[in-house]
Amino acid sequence: MGGNTREVGRTSASRLLAVLGVFSAAQPVLTLSEIAEASELPASTAHRLLGELVEWGALERTSDGHYQVGLRLWRIGSLAPQQRDLRAVALPFMEDLYAATHENVQLAIRDGKKALYLDKIGGTRSVDTVTKVAGRLPLHATGVGKIILAFSEPELLHLVVEDGLERCTPHTITMPGRLAETLRRVRADHVAYSREEMTMGAASVAAPIFGVNAQLLASLAIVAHSSSDVERFAPAVRTAALSVGRRLADLSAPVSARR
Amino acid sequence: MGGNTREVGRTSASRLLAVLGVFSAAQPVLTLSEIAEASELPASTAHRLLGELVEWGALERTSDGHYQVGLRLWRIGSLAPQQRDLRAVALPFMEDLYAATHENVQLAIRDGKKALYLDKIGGTRSVDTVTKVAGRLPLHATGVGKIILAFSEPELLHLVVEDGLERCTPHTITMPGRLAETLRRVRADHVAYSREEMTMGAASVAAPIFGVNAQLLASLAIVAHSSSDVERFAPAVRTAALSVGRRLADLSAPVSARR
Repeated sequence: MGGNTREVGRTSASRLLAVLGVFSAAQPVLTLSEIAEASELPASTAHRLLGELVEWGALERTSDGHYQVGLRLWRIGSLAPQQRDLRAVALPFMEDLYAATHENVQLAIRDGKKALYLDKIGGTRSVDTVTKVAGRLPLHATGVGKIILAFSEPELLHLVVEDGLERCTPHTITMPGRLAETLRRVRADHVAYSREEMTMGAASVAAPIFGVNAQLLASLAIVAHSSSDVERFAPAVRTAALSVGRRLADLSAPVSARR
Repeated sequence: MGGNTREVGRTSASRLLAVLGVFSAAQPVLTLSEIAEASELPASTAHRLLGELVEWGALERTSDGHYQVGLRLWRIGSLAPQQRDLRAVALPFMEDLYAATHENVQLAIRDGKKALYLDKIGGTRSVDTVTKVAGRLPLHATGVGKIILAFSEPELLHLVVEDGLERCTPHTITMPGRLAETLRRVRADHVAYSREEMTMGAASVAAPIFGVNAQLLASLAIVAHSSSDVERFAPAVRTAALSVGRRLADLSAPVSARR
């Protein structure tokens, strides 16, 4: 968050970014005083910056005087290439996976010590999940997160363990030794499971998407009711993840040469 | 664009927004000098602002020194409620429509005098389209755009005609009288077609999504090969669009009471 710097020495630009930084999935609609407090700005400064942000279209004012993110900021944010390029390549394969299984299909990448969900698709008959697009979930409790932990540098696991393995449900793996053992199996099988470890009632199976240099780019998962046998989806998820990687490799020459 | 104001009287915050505003779907990756020129800022000012934007995570610097939009801006942009709430409700119905037809399914809203695409889904077997998520296309040449024109205030049609009806393909409707006649049929049928009017080889069928007050919220469409009989998809698209509207109405009490 941008709000933890002191007023002295802050540039006007950094104050504007601090205002934008207080909006989050947990707090998408805010009042002037909430924004001023969270960004550590005087109300008059926050009010002036909010006026500029609204005029430009980064924020919108609701009929009851609250502030929320505007469509222009969404349009510009959608240009982020990690999100846009990977999503564009992965989405058709995700659709095919959904058509074949009618379960939720999710695409996630690493963002610091969390799994960031780039996209999710699911029909009216799929299980409800806690995942939100652009939302973040813990690495140790999710299928996509275990893939990220298994195929990133070992330092990431140390950092996550150091923070403590939060117990999201009674089934979450909270013992570092058991998590390390699980990740060894994930590295051998190229598939990771989460069985009611993030959300009671839901189970997931995830597979890695690798780039041309065998570096992990993303993780693809199916999330289904915990009562269903998610292991039977493993070949489909692995196949789709491999297909995305192959398509990215096909595109890699023109992508690196673009513009 | 924020770049059309003069240097005198510009605040530091407005300069920062001008830098963000030069990024577009047509120009997602830019050099320092391109950014300085498009935002009408001295290179030294642009360089300092780019440094702040990169540090905060709004932009990223590529290995070859270009600038592109960063994941943090994507995360915050994704909070835009028009995009987020409508997409969350519409997506399961879009998935079902895709599963039933295996054609591209698109969701668009009005943004000024253009159709703004909030989402698109399509499998590996669907026709290629020019649509990009967060991209904008002309109202008079697309199925979703004709829905928007037909069910918005008449003033919008006047504005669009005043700008001139651009000929996107040889089949684009460029005569105001013929467009008005087409829109009368769209209002009667609650369905709009575009047959190679935007892109050669592609045809679309679109239907309106109405809010609780019978106001147009969005438009839903199927885009298929122009050789296919898109009329046979009309009942499916209309049904899905009605289902989204019904679901939005079901949710409208808690939505208006939220926070």
